[in-house]
Amino acid sequence: MIIIGEKLNGSIPSMAKAIAEKNEDYIRNMAQKQSEAGADFLDVCASVPEEQELEVLKWMIDLVQSVTDTPICIDSPSAKICAEAVQFCKNPGLINSVSGEGDKIATIFPVIANSKWECIALLSDDKGIPQTTERRIEIFHDIMQNAGEYKIAPNRLHIDPLIEMLCTSEDGIIRVINTIKKVKELYPEIHVTGGASNISFNLPARKYINRAFMILAINSGMDSAILDPLNKDMMGLLYATEALMGSDEYCINYINAFRDGLFGNP
Amino acid sequence: MIIIGEKLNGSIPSMAKAIAEKNEDYIRNMAQKQSEAGADFLDVCASVPEEQELEVLKWMIDLVQSVTDTPICIDSPSAKICAEAVQFCKNPGLINSVSGEGDKIATIFPVIANSKWECIALLSDDKGIPQTTERRIEIFHDIMQNAGEYKIAPNRLHIDPLIEMLCTSEDGIIRVINTIKKVKELYPEIHVTGGASNISFNLPARKYINRAFMILAINSGMDSAILDPLNKDMMGLLYATEALMGSDEYCINYINAFRDGLFGNP
Repeated sequence: MIIIGEKLNGSIPSMAKAIAEKNEDYIRNMAQKQSEAGADFLDVCASVPEEQELEVLKWMIDLVQSVTDTPICIDSPSAKICAEAVQFCKNPGLINSVSGEGDKIATIFPVIANSKWECIALLSDDKGIPQTTERRIEIFHDIMQNAGEYKIAPNRLHIDPLIEMLCTSEDGIIRVINTIKKVKELYPEIHVTGGASNISFNLPARKYINRAFMILAINSGMDSAILDPLNKDMMGLLYATEALMGSDEYCINYINAFRDGLFGNP
Repeated sequence: MIIIGEKLNGSIPSMAKAIAEKNEDYIRNMAQKQSEAGADFLDVCASVPEEQELEVLKWMIDLVQSVTDTPICIDSPSAKICAEAVQFCKNPGLINSVSGEGDKIATIFPVIANSKWECIALLSDDKGIPQTTERRIEIFHDIMQNAGEYKIAPNRLHIDPLIEMLCTSEDGIIRVINTIKKVKELYPEIHVTGGASNISFNLPARKYINRAFMILAINSGMDSAILDPLNKDMMGLLYATEALMGSDEYCINYINAFRDGLFGNP
């Protein structure tokens, strides 16, 4: 399971405050804690007006890199900003994100073509999020064709099938599950990722929906997730799911993660 | 999801104490609380020497029936005791359990043949728990043939595929998942049940294994479980899983269960 730590995000009120107050200790501490909790990438999202965004991103990335070698996940709604921020990173990381929308692919894929950079790709286009699995898979084929032209191998891509809220669904998560299965069937080496919390929007006791969703998504092929690695209950369930699915022989990883204090009370 | 409340069991130390001390309030209270938490059946297991067992079971069942109409699940290692305890129950309930072992089926099936009683059936035989899915399915076919002869319809049976501990498995739970799928494929109307805790034997932070297992088992077709309905985290995940799987349109049951205080903090 590839864990993309979500805490360095200016859309979280406490992080917005730290960014506004230039609280360097807060940023460094959050970077370090997420790395220690097992994050494979640290998502860095400024969430400030676009004219300040590149400067704030550089400041945040420098702070993160001063305390950890965990690769950065550059997170911006602007493809241009994503492409420019690549130069701030010491090591190849992950870009969050491209999609079938506008010139995102044309802006980002050339920058990461001859590199070890990875990239999240959302299955949406200029018309928004498609309602059907079929249309999402069409967008997926477009993305893969572009990736092929830029020689970006499937194992450098994290496909986000776009998880919509459950409360307005008549048939649960069957569509997203089918999309995940189809993507993994077409390209077994590809990663499938997603956020763990949009699913529960507008529902009470959201943690139960988020956690059960992650387990079902992993079971259908999701192998990457944007989440809070400091949430020990979620991490315990992820390690448990991997052991149950047979990808952790004799539960060695589960037992070691427990001993390392990543979940439970050792 | 059919919830079989597990708390009225003399193998739980606090319940053993209540039984030894003839603490009627404790028994009644535990019956009432589990019913209010949504139990569909209340498992009653004396866990005392066989010569006292029938008497203790009658005492427990009478106490339970004095506070709730939730049907009883008679739980004894002795098929003879199970068959005799049926007469103590005001309403048809569930018997825990038969298997391919000895004369269990021959003792219990005739008693419940012309009734609304349901029955748990374990996929083991005189040689113990089979290692392969194939052998478990052979035992399943034997049980179904006997059930057919006694006119016990599949929807009155809860098949327990027998969940072994994960810590000694090289390939996770794939065998039990395959068994569940096969049983449901052969008889879509049948129930599949199981305990939620044996899976995590000998592992740390067992709750994560137990909870992730339940979600994966439900996803493969389990629709009945022996568990603690007072465990709000488990109940929240079960309601969440049903909503995610599309069996709870617009999350109505999830939201109502939350409002009724069955999980979360309303």
